[in-house]
Amino acid sequence: MVEPQAAPAVPAHLTSRMTLAVRFCETDLMGIVHHANYLTYFEAGRVDWLHRRGISYDKWVEKGIHLPVVEAKLRYKKAARFDEILVVETTCVDITRVTVRFGYRILRGGDVLCEGETLLACVGQDLAPKRIPPDIDAVFRSPETT
Amino acid sequence: MVEPQAAPAVPAHLTSRMTLAVRFCETDLMGIVHHANYLTYFEAGRVDWLHRRGISYDKWVEKGIHLPVVEAKLRYKKAARFDEILVVETTCVDITRVTVRFGYRILRGGDVLCEGETLLACVGQDLAPKRIPPDIDAVFRSPETT
Amino acid sequence: MVEPQAAPAVPAHLTSRMTLAVRFCETDLMGIVHHANYLTYFEAGRVDWLHRRGISYDKWVEKGIHLPVVEAKLRYKKAARFDEILVVETTCVDITRVTVRFGYRILRGGDVLCEGETLLACVGQDLAPKRIPPDIDAVFRSPETT
Amino acid sequence: MVEPQAAPAVPAHLTSRMTLAVRFCETDLMGIVHHANYLTYFEAGRVDWLHRRGISYDKWVEKGIHLPVVEAKLRYKKAARFDEILVVETTCVDITRVTVRFGYRILRGGDVLCEGETLLACVGQDLAPKRIPPDIDAVFRSPETT
Repeated sequence: MVEPQAAPAVPAHLTSRMTLAVRFCETDLMGIVHHANYLTYFEAGRVDWLHRRGISYDKWVEKGIHLPVVEAKLRYKKAARFDEILVVETTCVDITRVTVRFGYRILRGGDVLCEGETLLACVGQDLAPKRIPPDIDAVFRSPETT
Repeated sequence: MVEPQAAPAVPAHLTSRMTLAVRFCETDLMGIVHHANYLTYFEAGRVDWLHRRGISYDKWVEKGIHLPVVEAKLRYKKAARFDEILVVETTCVDITRVTVRFGYRILRGGDVLCEGETLLACVGQDLAPKRIPPDIDAVFRSPETT
Repeated sequence: MVEPQAAPAVPAHLTSRMTLAVRFCETDLMGIVHHANYLTYFEAGRVDWLHRRGISYDKWVEKGIHLPVVEAKLRYKKAARFDEILVVETTCVDITRVTVRFGYRILRGGDVLCEGETLLACVGQDLAPKRIPPDIDAVFRSPETT
Repeated sequence: MVEPQAAPAVPAHLTSRMTLAVRFCETDLMGIVHHANYLTYFEAGRVDWLHRRGISYDKWVEKGIHLPVVEAKLRYKKAARFDEILVVETTCVDITRVTVRFGYRILRGGDVLCEGETLLACVGQDLAPKRIPPDIDAVFRSPETT
C-alpha cells in the first residue's frame, strides 16, 4: 500500500484536500459507508485536485483524452457513517509517459478511515494507450493555482 | 399512479417479468433497499422487456436513438431486503409518436413492494426530440419472441 | 407534478438551497447524469434542509424515527453533465400527522433541469407508521436557523 | 495482485462462477462500466459463492456476524459495456482465524476484463474483531452443495 506521507520524493505541493459529506444512499445495512463508495470519493478527490490546478477533467474528455483507472488498491481502517464530514486527501505520487498514480487518504478529523491509490492510464477515445501530452504532464507536476 | 393491471386497453402480451436478487450495496442504513435503486430495477426490467422481443437497447444507441426517462413516478409500499428475490413486472402501457410509457410492479411472492411508471422520449444523439421510427414503434406493440 | 413556486400556501422560509457538483460516476453512457441519481440529489437537498434548521437526520434515526420515502415523482427537463455545479432547491410543501412532503427543483443557473417531490412517512425502527413527534413537526415548519 | 489460477494451494472446489448482465446505470460517460462497480460485482460473486454452499449471508448478519471488506485490489484490463453478459469467477484463496480472502476474475467469454481480491475481517455488530466461528470457517473450505 502506498503511504504518500512517507514517500520523500513527493513534494507537498502535489497534495490537495477537499471535504465531502457522506450521503444517506452511500450507507449499507451495516449502517456504514459501503466500501465501493470510497472509489467514488477517490475520484471526487482527483477531480477536485485538477480543479485546484485550473483544470476541468471534462475539457480533456472533449479533446479525446481519457484517464481510466487501470489499478486500484484500498485499505479500510475505520468505518464512516451517514452525514459525517470527511476529508479526501489526494496526492499525485508518480507520473510516467503513459500513466499517472494518485494516492488518497480519507480522513475524519485526525483519523484515517481509508487509504489507497489508483493508477490511471492515458487513452484516446478508442481506449487505445496514448502518451500523456506535455501540457497534461505539466499539470500533474504543478501546485494549486486557485 | 398508473395501475397497469387495471388498464383494460393494455393487452397481456405487453407485460414481461424478470427476476433479480437484491445486492448488498443496494441496501441502506435502514437495512432496506434504498429507494433510488427501484429506478434501476425499473430500467433493468425495461432492458429485459426488450430482450424478450429480440432487441438489445444498445443497438438502438449505436444507431443514434436514445430513449431517456423524462418522467418517473414511484409508490413504495413495502420494504425489500438484502438477498431477496424480486420480480420486476414491466408493461408497455402507452405509445405516442415521440414517447413511450412503461408501468412497473416490483413483487416479492404475492406482495407488491413498489409500483411506478416511466415516460421515455425518443431523442437523437444531440438529445433533440425525434419521432419514434416505425420499426421501434412496432417493437413496443409486440409480444415476447423468445 | 407539484410546482412549489406556484403554491401560495408555502411560505418562502420553507425553501432552502444547496449546491453540488456532478460526479463522474453519476453519468451514464449518454454522457449525462443518470436519472436515478436525481433521487439522491433530492435526498442530499433534504438532509441539507434539515441541517440549516439545526437538525442532523441521523439523530432522529438514533431515536428510532425514520422517514422513508413512500412516493416520488420526477420530471426531467434538461440534462446535467459531469462537473456541472447544480443547485438543489428543497421546499417543505405539506405536513400531516404522519407524512411530510418535499418539493425539489434542480437548477443550473436559471435553467430548471429536473423537478419533483417526495412524500415521506414517519415510521419506527420496525417500519410501522408512527405519528410525527411535535418537536419534529415543528422543524418542518421552521425557517433556517444557521 | 493475487492470481488465483496460479496458486497451487487453492483447490478447484473453492471456485464458483455466476453470470450477470451489465446494467445501463453502471456505465459512465466513457460508455464503459464505471470502475467502482467492479467492487459490487465482486460482492455479488461472493454472495453467490455462499449461496452455492447453502448459505445466505444475511443469516450471518442476523446472528451478529459481519464480514466487512478491509482491503481490496483491482486490476482493470479491458472495458465492459452495457448489456454484456459477464462471468464473475470467485475463489476463496485464504482463511485465517479472523480473516478470509477472496480472489475474483471478471470474464467476458475468454477475456479477463478485471481481476482482483478482497480481504474480509470477521467483526461483531459493534464492528470489533471477532474470531471466525467454526461453522463459518467450514463453509469457506467447502465445495458447492447445490
